[in-house]
Amino acid sequence: MTIRELDVDELFHAALNGNRRALGRLLTLIELGGSAADAIADQSFHRQHGVPVIGITGAPGAGKSTLTGQLLRTLPELGLRPAVIAVDPSSPLTGGAILGDRVRMDDVSGDHGFIRSVATRGHAGGLALSVPGCARLFDSAGYDPVIIETVGVGQVEVDVAGAADTTVVVVTPGWGDAVQANKAGLLEVADLFVINKADREGANDTRRDLELMLDLSHVSGQHQEYRPPIILTTAVDGHGVDHLWEAIVAHRSHLERSGELTRRRQARFRFEVMSRLNDHLSSMVDTITATIDDRSGRSPASLSAELLNSILAPDAGRLR
Amino acid sequence: MTIRELDVDELFHAALNGNRRALGRLLTLIELGGSAADAIADQSFHRQHGVPVIGITGAPGAGKSTLTGQLLRTLPELGLRPAVIAVDPSSPLTGGAILGDRVRMDDVSGDHGFIRSVATRGHAGGLALSVPGCARLFDSAGYDPVIIETVGVGQVEVDVAGAADTTVVVVTPGWGDAVQANKAGLLEVADLFVINKADREGANDTRRDLELMLDLSHVSGQHQEYRPPIILTTAVDGHGVDHLWEAIVAHRSHLERSGELTRRRQARFRFEVMSRLNDHLSSMVDTITATIDDRSGRSPASLSAELLNSILAPDAGRLR
Repeated sequence: MTIRELDVDELFHAALNGNRRALGRLLTLIELGGSAADAIADQSFHRQHGVPVIGITGAPGAGKSTLTGQLLRTLPELGLRPAVIAVDPSSPLTGGAILGDRVRMDDVSGDHGFIRSVATRGHAGGLALSVPGCARLFDSAGYDPVIIETVGVGQVEVDVAGAADTTVVVVTPGWGDAVQANKAGLLEVADLFVINKADREGANDTRRDLELMLDLSHVSGQHQEYRPPIILTTAVDGHGVDHLWEAIVAHRSHLERSGELTRRRQARFRFEVMSRLNDHLSSMVDTITATIDDRSGRSPASLSAELLNSILAPDAGRLR
Repeated sequence: MTIRELDVDELFHAALNGNRRALGRLLTLIELGGSAADAIADQSFHRQHGVPVIGITGAPGAGKSTLTGQLLRTLPELGLRPAVIAVDPSSPLTGGAILGDRVRMDDVSGDHGFIRSVATRGHAGGLALSVPGCARLFDSAGYDPVIIETVGVGQVEVDVAGAADTTVVVVTPGWGDAVQANKAGLLEVADLFVINKADREGANDTRRDLELMLDLSHVSGQHQEYRPPIILTTAVDGHGVDHLWEAIVAHRSHLERSGELTRRRQARFRFEVMSRLNDHLSSMVDTITATIDDRSGRSPASLSAELLNSILAPDAGRLR
């Protein structure tokens, strides 16, 4: 697909004036990548306002979509215009259930918000590039806040959660759920914990597990200035969602006061440039290694050194 | 650490003459990476005999180490001199248990074999480079076969299992174990299945699950010529280990007859060159992105394009 710069400009202009179809097309172009995506990334970058970006992550079935749906209902009442980027699991097996959630969430979005599902199919690098791109587009198009919902089950999801200013980790009552979140590396990225389905048995045990883990991480030097609060919610009836939003706003204030917001956005900027470079270079490597064979009598070590010399600028040497 | 080429030559000569300490030092140098590792890789590559490389993988607790230990006991009786590369999980929590297995295995190795633990700590790329390097060194030093034992729980482990000619996937009786192996992507890489602890209840159910999955993958076009056999073992008392070895030998014959061995080694050669290039380039990217910041007013898209231009040779453009 070739999209001329002119078309991107027109779409961008329309999206900024509230045209939802134009915004949808721009989001699709970002996901497809390539030069059109780069042009959109450029425009969004220069027009962004820096609105809060909130990541909501946790195990499948924790109730992230329902919780996100409740935020989408509540925030417009506060004069906000939220956008949601929902990162779907790639498994076609779970497609149905997730789709159900999406439909329910679409019902409430109306003109007061926007929901976009981003496929996790394709390469991991693509997702790391497209999610920040979509978030920035929503920001520049006047949405506030931007919510990124991901299933927290692997490195990709943790990376995507890292694209947020405030990361909310959702767990449910039940033995070992907090331990699982710890194993998946979610505790390290959590700015806020939600124990959802808090009306179920074991909510207090889960809270105690989380407090214990926070005590341990405090001792080991993490989170020394800020201790993530634990919020109890029952997303199906909206119970506790107001407390969640208050905690998100309080975390935002902490980020601004402490200078941490600047530091995080800086780190994300660096991570995004790094992802772009790695993505580009690994496609190059795929191309140049597609035709090599072991009958040249060259060892992998000497062949890769030679290929490296052929693709790198002579003065790139000081960087090696 | 600086090791002169001369030292590597001396160590290599000693290792080829049966000096186990010299071999151990070479393996350490491979793991440390850098120019000494490249020199060893070069020498091993040119002296290798192409002995069978067998991967043994599966979930933690499946009995891989015990099974490997039994092969180490059995193979010298057949006039073979096996080497084992054991890829340890990085978690310090499991270090104790694994160490116990290692000690038991070391007891039986004596002069008839060699066991080497490779740490999974550090970056994933490092492991993808050091394991094939160690395998090739064992090959050139006269060991036959080379066995790579990994915990099959993630992409890294699946990649490492891919460094073998024959990949053995070990499961245990119990509901869902075969399903877990499928989820982890192990079924796709399996040339042979072992149901270990086959004296336990449920071994036949697990066999039926595996057969069903093989039927499905057969229909979908995989494994059309070759269907992975399923071997039942009880590693603790050595039951079935002779059948496992027969199946490994039979698979080797199939690889040679069908031309698949050449194809696999070719693919691995390519993968190794690719890993080396990606490893080198991503260190470069880390270096050049360490000092960038978002106050330049440049978008990530334009900044990464500029950085790319500065490191790539002008004629690398056709490869982009």
